[in-house]
Amino acid sequence: MALVVQKYGGSSVATAERIRRVAERIVETKKQGHDVVVVCSAMGDTTDELLDLAQQVAPSPPAREMDMLLTSGERISNALVAMAIHSLGAEARSFTGSQAGVITTGAHGNAKIIDVTPSRLRSALDEGLVVLVAGFQGVSQDSKDVTTLGRGGSDTTAVALAAALDADVCEIYTDVDGVFTADPRIVPDAQRLDQVSYEEMLELAACGAKVLMLRCVEYARRYNVPVHVRSSYTDKQGTYVYGSMEDIPLEQAILTGVAHDRSEAKVTVVGLPDVPGYAAKIFRAVADAEINIDMVLQNISKIDTGKTDITFTLPKSDGSRAVELLTRHQDEIGFAQVLYDDHIGKVSLVGAGMKSHPGVTATFCEALAEAGVNIDLISTSEIRISVLVRDSELDEAVQALHKAFDLGGDEVAVVHAGTGR
Amino acid sequence: MALVVQKYGGSSVATAERIRRVAERIVETKKQGHDVVVVCSAMGDTTDELLDLAQQVAPSPPAREMDMLLTSGERISNALVAMAIHSLGAEARSFTGSQAGVITTGAHGNAKIIDVTPSRLRSALDEGLVVLVAGFQGVSQDSKDVTTLGRGGSDTTAVALAAALDADVCEIYTDVDGVFTADPRIVPDAQRLDQVSYEEMLELAACGAKVLMLRCVEYARRYNVPVHVRSSYTDKQGTYVYGSMEDIPLEQAILTGVAHDRSEAKVTVVGLPDVPGYAAKIFRAVADAEINIDMVLQNISKIDTGKTDITFTLPKSDGSRAVELLTRHQDEIGFAQVLYDDHIGKVSLVGAGMKSHPGVTATFCEALAEAGVNIDLISTSEIRISVLVRDSELDEAVQALHKAFDLGGDEVAVVHAGTGR
Repeated sequence: MALVVQKYGGSSVATAERIRRVAERIVETKKQGHDVVVVCSAMGDTTDELLDLAQQVAPSPPAREMDMLLTSGERISNALVAMAIHSLGAEARSFTGSQAGVITTGAHGNAKIIDVTPSRLRSALDEGLVVLVAGFQGVSQDSKDVTTLGRGGSDTTAVALAAALDADVCEIYTDVDGVFTADPRIVPDAQRLDQVSYEEMLELAACGAKVLMLRCVEYARRYNVPVHVRSSYTDKQGTYVYGSMEDIPLEQAILTGVAHDRSEAKVTVVGLPDVPGYAAKIFRAVADAEINIDMVLQNISKIDTGKTDITFTLPKSDGSRAVELLTRHQDEIGFAQVLYDDHIGKVSLVGAGMKSHPGVTATFCEALAEAGVNIDLISTSEIRISVLVRDSELDEAVQALHKAFDLGGDEVAVVHAGTGR
Repeated sequence: MALVVQKYGGSSVATAERIRRVAERIVETKKQGHDVVVVCSAMGDTTDELLDLAQQVAPSPPAREMDMLLTSGERISNALVAMAIHSLGAEARSFTGSQAGVITTGAHGNAKIIDVTPSRLRSALDEGLVVLVAGFQGVSQDSKDVTTLGRGGSDTTAVALAAALDADVCEIYTDVDGVFTADPRIVPDAQRLDQVSYEEMLELAACGAKVLMLRCVEYARRYNVPVHVRSSYTDKQGTYVYGSMEDIPLEQAILTGVAHDRSEAKVTVVGLPDVPGYAAKIFRAVADAEINIDMVLQNISKIDTGKTDITFTLPKSDGSRAVELLTRHQDEIGFAQVLYDDHIGKVSLVGAGMKSHPGVTATFCEALAEAGVNIDLISTSEIRISVLVRDSELDEAVQALHKAFDLGGDEVAVVHAGTGR
């Protein structure tokens, strides 16, 4: 008998019929003798509909009220799932984030979990009940206001509860069969991975793999929560995310997969004096605007001019803000020009075996060269190589790398509609 | 500067446009220098839609989860109104029933308010904020679960908050211009009443006047909260409900109005031994089934047989249950037959002046006789006369009484669509 936390995404509970199917899976797990804690996202498009309502009522709604509004979506889905479980003859009790003891910061819309005090959940479990918790929400420590955790918040809720309750596993039910060596929509023979270490999953998530949000993986790694990514539509075994890459026997640990990301844009600051401190001025200006930058490259200074260029990538959504910002500071910082390019894509190869297998970078570049894909920018970590390419060449790049490192399998990946978050 | 509690019904906040209009009225009141506490019902059909969803998911959903589900409707509407107020330049903060300190019994679906501890509301008011509270909901004292107050719950929430905060007035905004001498849909020249005493309003509500729920009036009377019933669509002055009928100068206090009720059915138990204790058996059996009975009549015993008949009215919705119940007990109680009639209507004349003006009953009966309306059953209180008639003759009865007692006015009543609850 184990304690299992299960998280179901919005597409898994989008209709009454799907809710009943989810309830059956929960009751099945309960019947196997396990304690079950369930976290559900809001039904399908509920959140979008509420956002739309808010827009109709007020152009820029206050964040506190937005949280009060949006959190009702998870209350609805969790109450409905509890009813469906009840109709199957099992007993369930649903709790709001506040009732479940999910204590957060006061940053409405993007609150961080400070603590989880699940005493009410514990006693409900002791009563033999299935426990449901509204995902994506909590209560602020200081003002006791309702807060939301931001994107992928329900996954984080599930992992945080699993940590607080010392659960044996946190099952994330989504609309894909698990974590793949590449996006099956781009690489048909992409292979499902049986297990991925926290570090590798972090790199994959950071490089655009959407199956798990970065925050959720960070939380799982910090509290050493085994995460099981599975499809809510099939009984395929999915992917286990746990363990450090050190634990993985070297002969297995070669390469994990190829991730890609279309969400970034590239900014190049041209003709910057190649003197210490000038790059810092650039990044300080951007940081003060709370814009996260990803890859950075400083060109070799041109001897004749003593000037240099700095290139960095950032979310497309922040692109125009960043360009305005830098242009405003142009004279003060002293550079010639700002260039902006949002027709780029990032492709990354991730694998713990990288550091112990020389020649990966060489094979990486050769594969792209053979595919006629031009590399714009390279950045690497201990277990990752990322390059910037034309967005129009991104798919070929993913396919070429997947093939070059022989990541393909026989099992053909099934892709379901919807995103589940 | 006063403390004003305003309650807006579901039809008043049914759309984004109406929500903005409500917000304007709230901000206007705030600008007049008053402290404002607002209670909103769920938007238009939200509650029905949620009920429908629940039905699709489970045939008989547990009451606790039903409350968790339904209360999200008021969270949504209150958060949206807060946003609309914010967009008008005022500051507002919305609270759930639990956050507002509305402590109730644990009777899910029909909880009673035990206590109101509005400390969070007070400090928000002290900050100069408009305070919004989700109506119809509270938190149970023992289990700290989300509860709902049942029909008309938002009105009760508003009055309870007004009492706890010692508000100067509780304004109930609805889709009619106030309390009328009769239903304007039946009596076109029905007059809006400027003021009605608690006792009269209680009788009117008990006799089917839908503008205010009985519970809400009882609460207002108990805590002496002045209630102002107004239209959310006009600026007409509406009706004040406050004061005891003793306070009303006799020469004014004649008759208040005519109420009618189509929701009852009539049960007649025939051939009951005319011996003490038999009637009691009947009503005990019905009471044990938690069925509320209204009017009661015991016929004069027929000397020859020593048998008697007992007739009582009850909600149509409980009719079949009551008949089954009595039939089950027929032998044990010992009566000949149970008759059931749900084609009845109740018409009532209410007025504090009744007791000091003889002949009211006579005029009452003459008026119905002239209208050719047959009286089936009569019951009276100190300030009320109610009779049972054919449902097909109910409208004529209302019109005849309204005319006979000269309750009509010149002001033509405006009836708006929707019910507001």
